[in-house]
Amino acid sequence: MPTAKKGDPVNFPSYPHEVLAVVLSVRDDRLCVLLWKRARSPYRGRWALPGGGVEPAERLRDAITGHLATKVDVRDVAHLEQLATHSAIDRDPRARVLATAYLGLVPSDVEPKLPSDTQWHSVDELPPTAFDHHYFIEAAVARLRAKLSYTNIGFALAPLEFTIAELRDLFGAALGYELGATNLTRVLTRRHVIDPTERRATPGQSGGRPATVYKFAARELTVTDPFAVLRPPR
Amino acid sequence: MPTAKKGDPVNFPSYPHEVLAVVLSVRDDRLCVLLWKRARSPYRGRWALPGGGVEPAERLRDAITGHLATKVDVRDVAHLEQLATHSAIDRDPRARVLATAYLGLVPSDVEPKLPSDTQWHSVDELPPTAFDHHYFIEAAVARLRAKLSYTNIGFALAPLEFTIAELRDLFGAALGYELGATNLTRVLTRRHVIDPTERRATPGQSGGRPATVYKFAARELTVTDPFAVLRPPR
Repeated sequence: MPTAKKGDPVNFPSYPHEVLAVVLSVRDDRLCVLLWKRARSPYRGRWALPGGGVEPAERLRDAITGHLATKVDVRDVAHLEQLATHSAIDRDPRARVLATAYLGLVPSDVEPKLPSDTQWHSVDELPPTAFDHHYFIEAAVARLRAKLSYTNIGFALAPLEFTIAELRDLFGAALGYELGATNLTRVLTRRHVIDPTERRATPGQSGGRPATVYKFAARELTVTDPFAVLRPPR
Repeated sequence: MPTAKKGDPVNFPSYPHEVLAVVLSVRDDRLCVLLWKRARSPYRGRWALPGGGVEPAERLRDAITGHLATKVDVRDVAHLEQLATHSAIDRDPRARVLATAYLGLVPSDVEPKLPSDTQWHSVDELPPTAFDHHYFIEAAVARLRAKLSYTNIGFALAPLEFTIAELRDLFGAALGYELGATNLTRVLTRRHVIDPTERRATPGQSGGRPATVYKFAARELTVTDPFAVLRPPR
């Protein structure tokens, strides 16, 4: 159907394009982002998101997966979704570069081996960052927090199996406020976002009844509550 | 702080970049998208989203606003937000072009003057479209439907003032299923997404009590229910 062919002119100006990843994970009960310290100018010594250019045969998603692989084992990234494309004229002092960022999530029990220039940083205590990266980090944190409410995205932050107390602490760290375990259980089990397993946790020092171990029902993103309010008819 | 300067090399490959707009509106009780008929190859005679290139001094949002102005009076677009960037290698048969799409909304009582090549099309009965534009349309419809539930985005589809019966029909058309007026009123007034005015509607042919006229409390996008389920403490 398209009768134009490869090499026919397109009249759209071209721009260098980069991809970036905001990789979030709960570490030591705090929501953290993966940053590396720039060794060269511009912004030498500042902390930056992992990323880089896009090769001619790569889609944006393939490109960010490739760049992430130099920082973490990408099998540790349990979820990856496109966040936004930024286009401020002077976001890079060298030239006009367009940037598409992705949100990546790593489960809290996974310990990726990090290169020496790379560290987890609490999103509440960010060091000075490079370029416009802090805007991407803010957007990623807001996206994650919203999606914890109406999707099953928690699967990508949690271990494969967990007790309700563990999940409450994890969600509390990700959301930035404390949650009640009873309400969390009710909401997530009623919708079958999480299901109980046959396993019981080893009791802690305080003793008491062994807690039920739960798991997420699915390990791909699903909208669990698309019409929280405006429900379609059954 | 950045010690590099304009003209220093960046090692990111460049690609032609275009912006596109999925403009949605409820027309004759159906959710519709604004499309124009292509006069030239590729995809001559197919229906396409408005859009075009990005000038060196333009941000993406400025660029799409400029292109939209050739199709509709952009003052009629009550809301505009970035949707996604597509990067399939062969999405344009001429060259590799990256595309960033925006979602735009036009209120149902606004009648933009359309050029002769441009028409509203029901999203449920799309004609053959050009390039990968149908994917952008699907994504825009899904985004709108989700946001009707947890934001005040309805302000950008509705007239300035309306009765509950009118709003129920409008939301029903946008969501693709019928809603109950009682539930809709309860949900939207409890959260002060809509407020009653002093005005009463002129009774219809069927007579009866004049209906209360409502308006949206705000005319900028606000997340009305960010934690539909996982509420923060008060």
